[in-house]
This record gives sequence, structure tokens and C-alpha cells, in this order.
Amino acid sequence: MDNSSSTISLASVKTYLLDLHASIIAAIEKIDGQSFVRDAWERPAVEGGSVHGSGLSCILEEGNVMERAGIGFSHVRGDHLPPSAAAHHPESAGCPWEAMGVSLVFHPRNPYIPTVHMNVRFFHITNKENQPVWWFGGGMDLTPYYGFEEDARHFHQTCHAALTPFGADLYPRFKQWCDQYFFLKHRQEARGIGGIFFDDFNAPGFANSFAMMQSVGDHFLAAYLPIVERRKDMAYGERERDFQAYRRGRYVEFNLVVDRGTLFGLQSGGRTESILMSMPPIAKWRYDWQAPAGSAEAKLTSDFLPPREWIQP
Amino acid sequence: MDNSSSTISLASVKTYLLDLHASIIAAIEKIDGQSFVRDAWERPAVEGGSVHGSGLSCILEEGNVMERAGIGFSHVRGDHLPPSAAAHHPESAGCPWEAMGVSLVFHPRNPYIPTVHMNVRFFHITNKENQPVWWFGGGMDLTPYYGFEEDARHFHQTCHAALTPFGADLYPRFKQWCDQYFFLKHRQEARGIGGIFFDDFNAPGFANSFAMMQSVGDHFLAAYLPIVERRKDMAYGERERDFQAYRRGRYVEFNLVVDRGTLFGLQSGGRTESILMSMPPIAKWRYDWQAPAGSAEAKLTSDFLPPREWIQP
Repeated sequence: MDNSSSTISLASVKTYLLDLHASIIAAIEKIDGQSFVRDAWERPAVEGGSVHGSGLSCILEEGNVMERAGIGFSHVRGDHLPPSAAAHHPESAGCPWEAMGVSLVFHPRNPYIPTVHMNVRFFHITNKENQPVWWFGGGMDLTPYYGFEEDARHFHQTCHAALTPFGADLYPRFKQWCDQYFFLKHRQEARGIGGIFFDDFNAPGFANSFAMMQSVGDHFLAAYLPIVERRKDMAYGERERDFQAYRRGRYVEFNLVVDRGTLFGLQSGGRTESILMSMPPIAKWRYDWQAPAGSAEAKLTSDFLPPREWIQP
Repeated sequence: MDNSSSTISLASVKTYLLDLHASIIAAIEKIDGQSFVRDAWERPAVEGGSVHGSGLSCILEEGNVMERAGIGFSHVRGDHLPPSAAAHHPESAGCPWEAMGVSLVFHPRNPYIPTVHMNVRFFHITNKENQPVWWFGGGMDLTPYYGFEEDARHFHQTCHAALTPFGADLYPRFKQWCDQYFFLKHRQEARGIGGIFFDDFNAPGFANSFAMMQSVGDHFLAAYLPIVERRKDMAYGERERDFQAYRRGRYVEFNLVVDRGTLFGLQSGGRTESILMSMPPIAKWRYDWQAPAGSAEAKLTSDFLPPREWIQP
């Protein structure tokens, strides 16, 4: 592992993330016809304060295609890494750290368009020997309400294409990691059809690791937009909207019960409205509801949620 | 503390809880006009299985008054108390235990009727010296969407009346405990206007402790039904329904992020549909939404959610 400080440039990671943030916003505004509201925030450093930094939370609500689409950039730092954030690097607990990333969840209105999540992030610690410890993390995953095999294959193929230049082993590893992470244990059910997930990535050195994360970010629109285009004009009715709202209840359960990032953010005093941009605009719960046998709604659970190999090796 | 086994009767606690469960159901069915669906469940004891028992989950959805009302009885036991459940009794971790209780959350359709929660429970451990360790817990609290001082006063007065025969100190203690417990730290906001909450209650001995818990259970309908009667025919429109759905998002956040009972249940492999009977039928999220200044919606946050003394001493 090349962890030498000479090759690390936080400024270039930040520049990349801000450009990615802007380009995704521009593409979604073009397809939607409405604009994101841009909410820049700053958390000043205060005496004894643990975390400070700034961010840009952008949200498009009640759009033509997007019912609630949130994308945020944030750059925060602290003087003492909390032990809970240093699980994989216990020797760095208490050291100065900074983190930056782009995170998005898009909830389209049309139930035939899947909800999507993407995140790319960089973490940097200055350890007790004054040496840098750093890694990249991120991924993207798709949560359909109605399953379409061509959409699932396209999404996974694009994830595969993003990773393959950096090693043939990455896609299978990150695909499995994603299936394991986005799983509701209390439902014994996957959140969606998966994608890729990675963390603590630094083995090939800074330049290669950064390039890999960039490739994931750069492939997001190619993975998602063709699916939006294909589904956005499909007709739907109350039945499909109702099922979408019911399934979005599972999304809420995942984010609030399972997701470590959300829980850590809320518990550590993060900016609540920014963290909860991932919540759907509307969600429903209904006791022990079962989709009619053989219905499209039943097929989601039987054919799409159990982890599958979506691309042929 | 009178913890002698001679005075403890699990059978009489169970009989009381089942009667309470039935009487609340009967009263709600009478005011609603529709019936609860009764779902009896059993979790058999299996080799190496941690928790077994049975329960009765009852739910009324899409009623005339209730949009989603869930009330459950459960009686579960295990051979080895998990350490996470033995926080206040670390010496009893690993010992045989059983727990029984009635828990309810009622979400009415009319936004002028508050959501209500009530719970009474009994916990019993046989410790390493083969001696019983036991306590009662429970409480009730009210979550209005539109604040009415007379409703808040009535609810708290009834809580006060339930507790006063068992000591003048109980209401103030349990009222404060409730304000502290039903608080969303990540919102810096109370869930509702509170009520009473207690746990680990056994100081006056079994008979008195049991009588106190019975008094709480027995006062529930007197605390809630007059409010339902007063509000159920008030006219409302889309604005009020929308605000109700938005506020119900906070209820979801509390139950999934903060509530120890829900989290413990989901994480320990409890029955998910029974645990999540507390979820509202529908919830909404909207970025950084603020009620118009001076509106009834703004008054909820400014005048009702900050903890107040609702009854004069």
C-alpha cells in the first residue's frame, strides 16, 4: 500500500467531488425540467466543538420526473476521531481527521422508475506518528418497485464497466459487499437489486484508488439515466403508486434502522435535514400485506430481491 | 423492596393484561364501528432458540375513526437473558427470564385527534441464586398534530389520577421521565405532549407495584376516549391531512431511531409485523419545511412540544 503523503491531494479529491455534484445536478435538471434548491451550509469551528465544516445540500421536490431527489456534498473535519468512526482503524481514534463526499438518493414519481442511491467519499486521518491514513469508499445501488430484467442488467453492467479497468476481482467483490450491506435483517429481504459497495479502499495507492472512485462516480449517470428515460412515460395508476409507497416504507426502515452512515450522522449531531434527504416523500405501512400471487408486485419479491448474478462472466 | 417469591403471581398479571387488551379493543371497536383483525401467533421453543412464546396482534386499518390502530399482547420467555436486556440488572445476564405486556399505538384518521401510545409490561428473571428478580414498566403518551390545551390537560390529569393513590411523587417523576424518553435528539424536539413513563418499578413490593400498573392500564381509555369524542367530527381538509402525514414522519423517526423497545425487538429477531404495528399508515418528508408563522401548525412546535406543566399542583 502506497500511503505516502506526497501522492495525496485532498484538493483534487474535493475538486472532483464538486464537479461530479454539479454534473449530476445538471443532468437531472435537464431530464426533469425543474431546478434543485441549493442550500449551502456551514458549521463553524467552536471551542471544544467536535465536528466542523461545510456542505451543499441540493434538493428537487415535486418535480416532473423526480418526486424527491436529494444530492449533497459535504466536507467536515474534527480534531479527534470518534472511536465509533474508527472501527477499522482503532489506532487512529482521537486523531485529527477529515471526510468529504457526495451522496445522493433519487425518488422518482413514476413507480416504474427505480429509486437510486450513489455515494463516493474520501476519509483522511493524521495519525499519532503524524503520518496520513486514508481510504476511499462508496458505491451505487438500485431499488426498483417493479422489476425489469433489462434495467437490472444494464445497471450492473455499468457498475462492472466502471470497476473492471481497476481489476477483474473488484466487481464480484463489491457486488457481494453491496448485497450484504443493503439487507434488511428484520425482513430477511434485500433493499433492492443491489449494485456495488466498497469501503477502506487504498490498497493500490492514492492515484489508482482515487481513479477507481472517480470511475464509479463518472459511471453513475450512464447507469441510471437510460433506465429513467425508458420508464418515465409508462402509464401507471393508484395501484402502482400505492405499492411504491408501501415499498418505500422498507426504504425508510433500512435507512433508519440499518444504515450505519445515517445512524452515525444523526447520533453524532450531523445536519438532520441533509442526512434525511434520503427519506422518500411519502411512505406507507400496512399490516402483514402480501402481494397477490403471480402479480408484478409479487415478482419483485420472488424474482428480483433475492441476490442474483445480473451479468454473465 | 419486597421481592419475595410468595407474593408474585405471573398468572394474575397475565389475566389482567389479557382482560385489558380485550376491553380496550371492545371500546375502540364501539367508537369506530369496525372490527380489529386478530392475529394470534406462536413462536415455538426450538433447540438453541433464544426466545419463544406467543402473542395476539390486533389491528384495525382503514376504519371510520382509526386509520391504523394496533394493539398487541405478548408473552415471551428465554433461557438466557441477553446482556442488552439486562442493563439495569447486569448480575442477571444469562438467567432464565420471561416478559409479558400490552402495547398499543393508535393513529386516527382525523388530524385533530392525537396519536396515542400506551404500554404496560412485567419482567421476571430467575437469578443465579434461584431467586426472582422482577419489575413493572409502562406508561402512556399523547402526540397531537394540532394542539388543544384542554386535551393536554385532560390527558395529564388522568395520568395524575392513575398514579396519585400510589404516592404523590409518582406523577411528577414519571411525567419528567416521559418527557426525557420521548425526545428526538436529532430534531431537538419532543415527540408529543408527553404523559407518563416508568420502568424497573418494584420498590413497594409486588402487590402494590402490580396495582399501580393496573391503575395505569385502567386509566387509558378515560385519558384518551374523551379526546377522540371531542375531535372526531371536526372538519378538516388536505392541509391538515398533509401536516398530519409530515408530523407522522417524526413518529417514524422516533420509533426507528430512538425507541429502545423497537430496536431491541427488531435486532433480537422479534416478530417484525407486530413490532411495526406502531408505524403510521402514511408518512411524508419534506426538506426543511417550516410552518407559516402564527399558524396552528407553528403553534404545535412553539406552544405544545416544549415540555410544560399541564396540571396545577
